[in-house]
Amino acid sequence: MSKTRAYISVSLDGYVAGPNETMEEPLGENGERLHDWATALRSWRELQGMEGGEDNASSAVIADDNANVGAEIMGRGKFGPPARGPWDAGDPWRGWWGDDPPFHKPVFVLTHHAREPLTLSDTTFTFVTDGIQAAHDLARQSAGEKDILIGGGAKTINQFLAAGLVDQLDLHVVPLILGGGARLFEGVGPALRLELARVIDAPGVTHLRYHVSREGR
Amino acid sequence: MSKTRAYISVSLDGYVAGPNETMEEPLGENGERLHDWATALRSWRELQGMEGGEDNASSAVIADDNANVGAEIMGRGKFGPPARGPWDAGDPWRGWWGDDPPFHKPVFVLTHHAREPLTLSDTTFTFVTDGIQAAHDLARQSAGEKDILIGGGAKTINQFLAAGLVDQLDLHVVPLILGGGARLFEGVGPALRLELARVIDAPGVTHLRYHVSREGR
Repeated sequence: MSKTRAYISVSLDGYVAGPNETMEEPLGENGERLHDWATALRSWRELQGMEGGEDNASSAVIADDNANVGAEIMGRGKFGPPARGPWDAGDPWRGWWGDDPPFHKPVFVLTHHAREPLTLSDTTFTFVTDGIQAAHDLARQSAGEKDILIGGGAKTINQFLAAGLVDQLDLHVVPLILGGGARLFEGVGPALRLELARVIDAPGVTHLRYHVSREGR
Repeated sequence: MSKTRAYISVSLDGYVAGPNETMEEPLGENGERLHDWATALRSWRELQGMEGGEDNASSAVIADDNANVGAEIMGRGKFGPPARGPWDAGDPWRGWWGDDPPFHKPVFVLTHHAREPLTLSDTTFTFVTDGIQAAHDLARQSAGEKDILIGGGAKTINQFLAAGLVDQLDLHVVPLILGGGARLFEGVGPALRLELARVIDAPGVTHLRYHVSREGR
């Protein structure tokens, strides 16, 4: 059965980005260090069209994270730019990823500001202004039998968790204290039920997979 | 070599107690659920002088947590009562644990309010008013070749982590969202270095052991 799932790297103190996001540091102070375990891997680098890298116990996790995804939903915060508000009419922001984004599938961007779809190579970004359920319905149609990935950031994942729309959550727990930034689970509330499904211990990261449900659903 | 260490049960959203502590719920709303994995165990129940219980992968963890401890340091928050301030001169609070507390070793209680030591059975509580380093020095003298345990709550553990006084941190991660309460790692800051030393997957809990150091020490 197709699932709705999320995976995200999180610091030991519960942040998925550090404090003070800027154009130069879109993940905030020290936030890039959350992904050191991944960027060192051959499998991650292949997905970005890069060469080199190593193989370790995280390689299979990267493969799992990105397998069978039919559509992705992301927040305006992930799509960017850091300065929010209406899109620049003359030269609207086209994402962080250049002319060949690494998604290769339909991406639905949650925003308060309407905009025509943007196609870059084989990725089409569709901008959704009527909330997470609407985005989920659109992504479900696009994904078919495949999974929907809630791609982040924290606020978006938290909204989907709170709404009971996430079936599986993969946390990549990095032994790092960020001391501030974007907090996972903020506002999610105590009705969420999680059950550990898998633990993988790898260099610089611990991978915890949870099956998620919500009381009353 | 003798270590200073802490172990604590923590929710997936980073709380070691739930919101709204009261006399009836000293660990706050749903906070008791953080310890369900432990209270079910025969080894935990034995330490409390209780019978029954089961054995599983957490049994060895409970034994490790409590092995080789020569002295414990705890915050006023753990000693209680929930209402802070000066001690009641006529009938001062004697802790949550009755006439035979389960410590069986010297306990140093951090407080802003001076008080004579309190001996109950084979546990003596010494009240320390001049801060964490003073408490650590006293505990080191008492512990001898054994370890010092930083017994909690979150605020006390956070202070010792921030000061670089903790060598080993055992987190018992419970797949529970508390949504508020006492946060581990709050105010600790990004200079802390943690390295995963051990993972144990057990029913209802994941045990993560970290070796801890601090940049510049």
